[in-house]
Amino acid sequence: MSQIYDRVALIGLGLIASSIFWASKRNNVSGCVTGFARSKKTRDTAKKIGLCDEIFDTAEEAVKDADLVILCVPVGAMEQVVLKIAPFLKSGATISDVGSVKRAVIDAVEPHLPDDVNFVPAHPLAGTEHSGPESGFASLFDNRWCLLTDHKTADKKSQNKVVSFWEGLGANVEFMEADHHDLVLAVTSHAPHLIAYTMVGVAEDLGRVTNSEVIKYSAAGFRDFTRIAASDPTMWRDVFLSNKKATLEILGRFTEELFDLQRAIRTENGDKLLNYFTHTRSIRRGIIEAGQDIEAPNFGRDIEIDQN
Amino acid sequence: MSQIYDRVALIGLGLIASSIFWASKRNNVSGCVTGFARSKKTRDTAKKIGLCDEIFDTAEEAVKDADLVILCVPVGAMEQVVLKIAPFLKSGATISDVGSVKRAVIDAVEPHLPDDVNFVPAHPLAGTEHSGPESGFASLFDNRWCLLTDHKTADKKSQNKVVSFWEGLGANVEFMEADHHDLVLAVTSHAPHLIAYTMVGVAEDLGRVTNSEVIKYSAAGFRDFTRIAASDPTMWRDVFLSNKKATLEILGRFTEELFDLQRAIRTENGDKLLNYFTHTRSIRRGIIEAGQDIEAPNFGRDIEIDQN
Repeated sequence: MSQIYDRVALIGLGLIASSIFWASKRNNVSGCVTGFARSKKTRDTAKKIGLCDEIFDTAEEAVKDADLVILCVPVGAMEQVVLKIAPFLKSGATISDVGSVKRAVIDAVEPHLPDDVNFVPAHPLAGTEHSGPESGFASLFDNRWCLLTDHKTADKKSQNKVVSFWEGLGANVEFMEADHHDLVLAVTSHAPHLIAYTMVGVAEDLGRVTNSEVIKYSAAGFRDFTRIAASDPTMWRDVFLSNKKATLEILGRFTEELFDLQRAIRTENGDKLLNYFTHTRSIRRGIIEAGQDIEAPNFGRDIEIDQN
Repeated sequence: MSQIYDRVALIGLGLIASSIFWASKRNNVSGCVTGFARSKKTRDTAKKIGLCDEIFDTAEEAVKDADLVILCVPVGAMEQVVLKIAPFLKSGATISDVGSVKRAVIDAVEPHLPDDVNFVPAHPLAGTEHSGPESGFASLFDNRWCLLTDHKTADKKSQNKVVSFWEGLGANVEFMEADHHDLVLAVTSHAPHLIAYTMVGVAEDLGRVTNSEVIKYSAAGFRDFTRIAASDPTMWRDVFLSNKKATLEILGRFTEELFDLQRAIRTENGDKLLNYFTHTRSIRRGIIEAGQDIEAPNFGRDIEIDQN
């Protein structure tokens, strides 16, 4: 693959940034990749494991001469970072991000950018329950979606280069309007995460069932919730605060529906439950057919989730 | 391994029964294994794939001379089946089941059993999202828990044989009081399943986000919900109806907690969210340490669940 950018700067060195680096090296997508993280400990770890071609002690130095700058910090930290680096961005450079929310990031970043910089907001739908500079790996984005926001301050050419960059990392790219992105993600990601966090909290808090019992028998369904409830706390705090409206809307719908099913249990309306469950099962089939999950049992990972 | 029973009868031939058969053959745990299913189609499939040593057209014939009879039908069908087979059970035989709820099964089964039969209720915490006679496999129970209920109508010797049988299939066995079992499972399995069903239903019902978008971007967290929401509808209807009290109790606690977190989002109480999420993360670590899940990314299965 031919290199898309000569020089890329990664601001923030967690799971996503480190995976961008390793995927970029694997496929030779960029020339020199520089990096910066606020914490000295993270910078030291990055140097030790060879993460980035060059690690700088300030964001200003890291972005100097970069053709593409990617903000890989929690959504709530974007504005601060942009205020710092804006004066040091190269004329004609492209700035992008990996935030899970797009409207709030645009509002935080755009007002502070110089006119000669192209802003192409991005959100790769990829991750694991792990965080930090050592958690990244080259195949994280393979065959996963990266959603870009079509944004007025970017010219077509710079947008196309960001598309090529993400395709070079292994992802499939689509454009989506910012507010619609935030609603879609509230459904497919943000509300499910809050629900998972809640269920795990309830289980832990229940005096009559011990923690060791919850953990021991977690394979009966609960375990699937803990996986997503183990995600990075800071990142998720920022996601909920910055996608408040859409998340609360979906949670409202969820509660309404949950009450309806609870009533069906209470009134022993078996037909209603059976119809509901039959219907949701068909949605699962759709996901498998769309190639977004696999059907085969693998290493105990998708077994023991049904008959309980 | 030496055979535990000369003759075992499986009533109902779905995922669990077929896995019991294959695991039993793999480890030579039982001699002849007979089978019965209500539907002719299931019986024909079983014959075709070699499931069971002998398939009978009636439950009465299948249980004749069996040393162990395992009821592998949905919880709501247990009573009917027992009424049919009770007069044909061998004197001294052991009867067991695989129901996800224990109090309701005991109430449905026990009154109809002859005095010379030992009843040892069981619940293997294992399954997949698939159902039917072709979905079973020999390793389903390996290193998984099987919970037995210590029950008055069973003598110690017959209980111990059921323990050996399940250990022979690969499972770890523990005893638990029936009502406590139902509460623990309400937390670790029944409430999570209803919540997952609900979230999938909401996503599907939401006019402003298309189904194809939900499916396409499901890897962002939603997908983990669909896996458990694809479980067998009849089985789950019966679970909720027969473990009504404990499930509704846990769902009540869940709703209370969810409202509290929703309020934290609405009032932008970031500290509360951060503390909550930090705490739930530690529970996940406990599950991994207890050997009930694995940490490594595998085939895209536990990736892309965090950064969204």
